[in-house]
Amino acid sequence: MSAIKSLQWRYATKKFDNSKIVSKEKIDILKQSFNLTPTSYGLQPLKLVVVQNQELQDKLLEHSFQQKQVVTASHLLVICIETEIDSDFINHHFNLVKQIRNTPDEILNPFKNFLLKDFENKSSLEIEQWATKQAYLALGNLLTICANEEIDACPMEGFNPEKYDEILELKEKKLKSVLLLPIGYRAKDDFFADLEKVRRPLKETIIDITNL
Amino acid sequence: MSAIKSLQWRYATKKFDNSKIVSKEKIDILKQSFNLTPTSYGLQPLKLVVVQNQELQDKLLEHSFQQKQVVTASHLLVICIETEIDSDFINHHFNLVKQIRNTPDEILNPFKNFLLKDFENKSSLEIEQWATKQAYLALGNLLTICANEEIDACPMEGFNPEKYDEILELKEKKLKSVLLLPIGYRAKDDFFADLEKVRRPLKETIIDITNL
Repeated sequence: MSAIKSLQWRYATKKFDNSKIVSKEKIDILKQSFNLTPTSYGLQPLKLVVVQNQELQDKLLEHSFQQKQVVTASHLLVICIETEIDSDFINHHFNLVKQIRNTPDEILNPFKNFLLKDFENKSSLEIEQWATKQAYLALGNLLTICANEEIDACPMEGFNPEKYDEILELKEKKLKSVLLLPIGYRAKDDFFADLEKVRRPLKETIIDITNL
Repeated sequence: MSAIKSLQWRYATKKFDNSKIVSKEKIDILKQSFNLTPTSYGLQPLKLVVVQNQELQDKLLEHSFQQKQVVTASHLLVICIETEIDSDFINHHFNLVKQIRNTPDEILNPFKNFLLKDFENKSSLEIEQWATKQAYLALGNLLTICANEEIDACPMEGFNPEKYDEILELKEKKLKSVLLLPIGYRAKDDFFADLEKVRRPLKETIIDITNL
């Protein structure tokens, strides 16, 4: 499928066929894609929790406004932000850069020191908002990759993150859940599957400023 | 290229070959992809400004921390949020749903009324933060589509949005710039093109919770 056809094919799947499981190969593509998402300063303040556990999914249902896609999905992806973006986290990133690229300290240090100072001056709310934006970026990437791989998905903001954090034991892992992406294959009788896609016309959402 | 290969191929391009122009066909794919980005409640609180005007790009350089990719790019994409997400905006969306899907009012109205009330209760800062998250989602989609189409791109948060809004006359259009995406084709001598990609190992960014 072309890029556009894929994006037109996808929709927020409300009911999955729970007899169909996303293959390990496809899950690996999604994991790698998530990890390849570009992030601000390259810091990757994110983790992806891949849930494939009916008991847990059933428990999460009531904290997801009873939205059934959470339980009928083959896998429930939970995009999380790191809650401790401190000097250790930043130093760890630069050690990774050094290790992978063999970049000398005199090149790395000015940028590293800038970031250390910059994050020291940010409030924890500012850091959380910064990381959350990166989670949306990752969701945008994952949704497009899912479409490309013909995996159905439902992007979700509506759930109780505190309850998710508790049930998935995320606090202990220094994580907060921010977005959900149940994935799988659409049920034949999903009412939403055949609805026309609603989008503003291009002339309302694109502005060309060109001298050509 | 496979999805993963494409994501590995892409990088934040710092220097474009300014003799190479992204074709109208490819620009159309990006415009349509932007418009097909899923957004919260389907409200599309975004617009994309496509700048291909050397004089303007030169003027924007000093408000982009002198980052040259803004002037060497074939096109400079500016992702904007709508600044007036009011009852008119929400009603306009539901009129569009009605027109495209022929959905009866009795089905649409409960959700419409919920959203009207919900947005009435949000502060303008909350609405701006909500819309900004959707801009990041759109950026994630566009970056993956660019990689897929072998178009180089550089996602940018670092610029002076007030100056951009002034120069591109966005305030009059009820818009605020939030993200930049210069696109084009990498220059042969872009120092960053051949650097190894730095990513945390998968075991640091993925958590499997599975009973299988």
